[in-house]
Amino acid sequence: MVIVMAPEATQEDITEVVALVASAGGEAFVSRGVSRTIIGLIGDVEQFASLNLRGQRGVADVMRVSTPFKLVSRDNHPVRSTVRVGGVPIGPDTVTLIAGPCAVETPQQTLEAAQMAKAAGATLLRGGAFKPRTSPYAFQGLGEQGLRILADVREKTGLPIVTEVVDAHDVPLVASYADMLQVGTRNTQNFALLQAVGAAGKPVMLKRGMSGTIEEWLMSAEYIAQRGNLDIVLCERGIRTFETATRNTLDVSAVPVAQRLSHLPVIIDPSHSGGRRDLVLPLTRAAVAVGADGVIIDVHPHPEQALCDGPQALVDGDLEELARIMRDFPPLLGRTQAANLAGESVAV
Amino acid sequence: MVIVMAPEATQEDITEVVALVASAGGEAFVSRGVSRTIIGLIGDVEQFASLNLRGQRGVADVMRVSTPFKLVSRDNHPVRSTVRVGGVPIGPDTVTLIAGPCAVETPQQTLEAAQMAKAAGATLLRGGAFKPRTSPYAFQGLGEQGLRILADVREKTGLPIVTEVVDAHDVPLVASYADMLQVGTRNTQNFALLQAVGAAGKPVMLKRGMSGTIEEWLMSAEYIAQRGNLDIVLCERGIRTFETATRNTLDVSAVPVAQRLSHLPVIIDPSHSGGRRDLVLPLTRAAVAVGADGVIIDVHPHPEQALCDGPQALVDGDLEELARIMRDFPPLLGRTQAANLAGESVAV
Amino acid sequence: MVIVMAPEATQEDITEVVALVASAGGEAFVSRGVSRTIIGLIGDVEQFASLNLRGQRGVADVMRVSTPFKLVSRDNHPVRSTVRVGGVPIGPDTVTLIAGPCAVETPQQTLEAAQMAKAAGATLLRGGAFKPRTSPYAFQGLGEQGLRILADVREKTGLPIVTEVVDAHDVPLVASYADMLQVGTRNTQNFALLQAVGAAGKPVMLKRGMSGTIEEWLMSAEYIAQRGNLDIVLCERGIRTFETATRNTLDVSAVPVAQRLSHLPVIIDPSHSGGRRDLVLPLTRAAVAVGADGVIIDVHPHPEQALCDGPQALVDGDLEELARIMRDFPPLLGRTQAANLAGESVAV
Amino acid sequence: MVIVMAPEATQEDITEVVALVASAGGEAFVSRGVSRTIIGLIGDVEQFASLNLRGQRGVADVMRVSTPFKLVSRDNHPVRSTVRVGGVPIGPDTVTLIAGPCAVETPQQTLEAAQMAKAAGATLLRGGAFKPRTSPYAFQGLGEQGLRILADVREKTGLPIVTEVVDAHDVPLVASYADMLQVGTRNTQNFALLQAVGAAGKPVMLKRGMSGTIEEWLMSAEYIAQRGNLDIVLCERGIRTFETATRNTLDVSAVPVAQRLSHLPVIIDPSHSGGRRDLVLPLTRAAVAVGADGVIIDVHPHPEQALCDGPQALVDGDLEELARIMRDFPPLLGRTQAANLAGESVAV
Repeated sequence: MVIVMAPEATQEDITEVVALVASAGGEAFVSRGVSRTIIGLIGDVEQFASLNLRGQRGVADVMRVSTPFKLVSRDNHPVRSTVRVGGVPIGPDTVTLIAGPCAVETPQQTLEAAQMAKAAGATLLRGGAFKPRTSPYAFQGLGEQGLRILADVREKTGLPIVTEVVDAHDVPLVASYADMLQVGTRNTQNFALLQAVGAAGKPVMLKRGMSGTIEEWLMSAEYIAQRGNLDIVLCERGIRTFETATRNTLDVSAVPVAQRLSHLPVIIDPSHSGGRRDLVLPLTRAAVAVGADGVIIDVHPHPEQALCDGPQALVDGDLEELARIMRDFPPLLGRTQAANLAGESVAV
Repeated sequence: MVIVMAPEATQEDITEVVALVASAGGEAFVSRGVSRTIIGLIGDVEQFASLNLRGQRGVADVMRVSTPFKLVSRDNHPVRSTVRVGGVPIGPDTVTLIAGPCAVETPQQTLEAAQMAKAAGATLLRGGAFKPRTSPYAFQGLGEQGLRILADVREKTGLPIVTEVVDAHDVPLVASYADMLQVGTRNTQNFALLQAVGAAGKPVMLKRGMSGTIEEWLMSAEYIAQRGNLDIVLCERGIRTFETATRNTLDVSAVPVAQRLSHLPVIIDPSHSGGRRDLVLPLTRAAVAVGADGVIIDVHPHPEQALCDGPQALVDGDLEELARIMRDFPPLLGRTQAANLAGESVAV
Repeated sequence: MVIVMAPEATQEDITEVVALVASAGGEAFVSRGVSRTIIGLIGDVEQFASLNLRGQRGVADVMRVSTPFKLVSRDNHPVRSTVRVGGVPIGPDTVTLIAGPCAVETPQQTLEAAQMAKAAGATLLRGGAFKPRTSPYAFQGLGEQGLRILADVREKTGLPIVTEVVDAHDVPLVASYADMLQVGTRNTQNFALLQAVGAAGKPVMLKRGMSGTIEEWLMSAEYIAQRGNLDIVLCERGIRTFETATRNTLDVSAVPVAQRLSHLPVIIDPSHSGGRRDLVLPLTRAAVAVGADGVIIDVHPHPEQALCDGPQALVDGDLEELARIMRDFPPLLGRTQAANLAGESVAV
Repeated sequence: MVIVMAPEATQEDITEVVALVASAGGEAFVSRGVSRTIIGLIGDVEQFASLNLRGQRGVADVMRVSTPFKLVSRDNHPVRSTVRVGGVPIGPDTVTLIAGPCAVETPQQTLEAAQMAKAAGATLLRGGAFKPRTSPYAFQGLGEQGLRILADVREKTGLPIVTEVVDAHDVPLVASYADMLQVGTRNTQNFALLQAVGAAGKPVMLKRGMSGTIEEWLMSAEYIAQRGNLDIVLCERGIRTFETATRNTLDVSAVPVAQRLSHLPVIIDPSHSGGRRDLVLPLTRAAVAVGADGVIIDVHPHPEQALCDGPQALVDGDLEELARIMRDFPPLLGRTQAANLAGESVAV
């Protein structure tokens, strides 16, 4: 940490700051400039946090020089991690395709979407049973019935399932069905939920808050990690900006930035970023090319009847091109498309 | 609703849309332009939502022309509402001062802060027992012990208490102590929590999401209202923008805009908006002047020791000016400062 | 300046940075921490800028600790300045009302708008002859003919005039008519224009860029000041955010923040911020209350016929309330409404 | 256009709107709903603009249903255009690499950077002689001397040159040296400059405003096109958001969105988007993959000595990978890397 003293700070102010830092077991190095004095702090940042240095007389600014997350930081864990979901890896050597319907509506729709996903090369199935919706008048998901449908489709297709949980107290229920728990963009700072999924013993996909910084996203991951769960996959899904041509602005830079700060895998959701079907394939290509460890994509057999986010779901005609992207682009980055290494016991 | 057809839409496409609308019990009026056709829809918007009109062939855009909230809308309830907390009104005739410590730390600190608040004219006490913190390494609040301290200080000062709840399953516990439940900015789209506070039988203060639109904020209020609770006070607390000189950007325009769209009272939090002590009084003046129905302000007897947001808490020297603002500005808007109409049984 | 070395920086890297700083005549103080080393720099920031310290091996971050503007900074000029336009002061003791039509359209419309402005208490007349418009198909202003109309109305009403200049090469022409030159939000980083108005010998009103930080705004003011012109008034006019209910988001906090960083007066434009007539008066109250040194407001005798921004212009019925705000609010801040101290030679 | 009447609008209000539209030669179709009436307008949008419909009594909202740009719109020009600079195409069949130093500093530095660019496969040379800088204390470019250096390097390398112009009155000078004129992000709404480059008879690269919407960007292009110049290349260079980990947020979605709305080529600047060397290659891959028609990249022989934006310039070690990206990725999109079809007369 670095403390910048105000131009009008007195020698007493400086002495007091130094004493305060010493009282917390830290060391303070004072550098006097022409118009300002700066004080470098050596010691444990958390310790200093409780000192409220910013509130001391004569202090103009306090600047942090190290990251506020530890377990998920790459500083102490330079090798990038691979998370396994069922037998499917998500990590630096592969590019994983996760696909499925935005919301589980019927057994038939879910099975058809899963078959579409699998045909395009997906090795994990996405599908929402609990849907957080901005409007209380919108379809809220089938709940446990949706989970049962997903489990049934998993048996029929061999695809492990990724599904969202929106309330801390539903975690045990959802974890009893799911292979991977998803925390959505509206819950990235729902700390009770983060702690609950941290304790659930299942891999977690943590979406970035729609207006969350990369640093906040990693602090949210730290909440999960603190409960002993490091099987976390970060998912960039677009941020809120002034541009209204797209539902959100996909921040592709977040992938290399987060991969440099953290050892966790980072994937991209091209469907929710743009919110438009015609953008899904271009953004999928960009996602793989920028170095994402996977993509998660909405598909629907009949998007015009979808109860949720139909306008962005890929349809049959797009799948061949999706399959081609997943086959041709990863090799250019020295990667392979992720397969289910555990084998699949059931044919479609 | 208005449907804009693409320039290349065919007559068949148009006929199909009209038939689809009719199938849902609506009426469609077709206006043919030189380069485009538009179709006006008459009927229930919710009904049309399930038609996925945006997904139909030939449809370029679907535009909503009415608001997506009903119970909190001013359309059907033109008179602005007054919410009562204990005996204290929050509404169009008054300006209510809510003050207290950001976090409850000790009985002594809470009592002193409450006395400061009262001396400045506050008629409601704020104080956090459950604190949602971005970093898992930051102070998380005292929990139920904090609620007991608040209840004790209420008895000593006569000030009804406003406190945050962060998990749906804590609502009964918090509601058993609090006079008003606060939903924080990170939980504005935690729908399980919104529904739980909607069913708790206590007034609710709903903060705006730090990157939530005014419309989304009102839809979140609608979630609460749907459970039968219309005692909702909206609280603007700054939004996230590119500007970094302040922690958030206080959106004062949100007050008149929300008051025009909804009958609910709207207050402002000048402490969390700016995140800087030197901005609290100027922003409080702006809040009252723009027409806010109240303000909620952090005070702390010893901010340099505060465990949470010390840099923005007002200190003793500021209170006289705060009291003056609350006394002199409301009359210029034809309002009075809100008193506790139930009377206060205990002197300080 | 403070340099933060990367965890993997070697002793050589550190030595090299120290030598580089010394080569530029500066001093470097090294503080070694457990995981990182930080280096404090003493000397002239501009000097160090050319060293490209950020590009040195082992450097993780370079943090500036002083402001990048000098002439407009309050550090070296603690007393806040008053700028005089004609005989009208804009500064810390007064609140100045500037009003008039968004665009000059006809002599009659301009005169009527000026009379409305004066009746509401305005002592300066605004009016655009050169209009920068986002669409090439929108009305672009009357040019010099508009300036002549303004000069004529000044003679008839005694109100000094404020008008926008959009091209560096029009500055002499516009300055030959105007009492104050306005630089608009789209030109805040048009550096040729800033330098030209800096050399024109007339007071300048510098609008904040619609997505400019406060720091960038002050650096733009520094461009003007460098040419010897310190008669600069800063004007906050709303910034671009994700919220679409208002045209821009008025950042009232920018007033106290800019007043603390700079000695220049700061005013607010409530008309362009909200872009809606119903917001102008509430935002004007907020502007005065937050401590703005003035407000600039659109008025139009027949807004339904306005060629530019009609929807936000105040009409006759609003003027009485505007006059009341300008009369009643400033005294609560220890200010008076600004009068024309030079006297006015012409009655209306 | 569609007019939405307020719920309280009277029959008279509706009649008046219809009459007003008719007076401008348009037709109005009225659709009465349960709570609101909407009016569809048929005719020329520009005509209606002058009616100030939004200002009419009873009007709640006016919604545009067609685009406000014509010459650059794809509606009337469905085939995507190719712009030629020297003999080098920028368009849908190729991916063009433009590279060079951010700023021209010396003949030697410029030549070395050009040779680096060419070795990486660049067929156009970028380099700034006139630099718009946020701080008046930063290096402002060499001016005409820089243009002469560029012309000299063009002769030595055969690379046509792209260089920025920042003032309308410098356009003839810059155009006398340059093969393509660049309009920078701070000048995207400097309309005098747009019109001047529109009349200069040279291809133009128009950067997106750092907080400009895609629609505003296309309207700025329309300003250029109106002067008879349709040789315009759009360049996405990152937008301003709340995220501070990168200098700007590269909006890759803008490429397919702009390509769908306009027939003009769209390229990406990965250097200025991220502002960090380690992001340039990942963002270049994303740019090509999303479908950009080219990329423009900073290279510098000695970035640690660069007078401008050194931290983001690619160095020798990166060039091989850049060359590989430009060779291997375009074929996956059915494109080739753009060559100089005019041939190059001078070897390096």
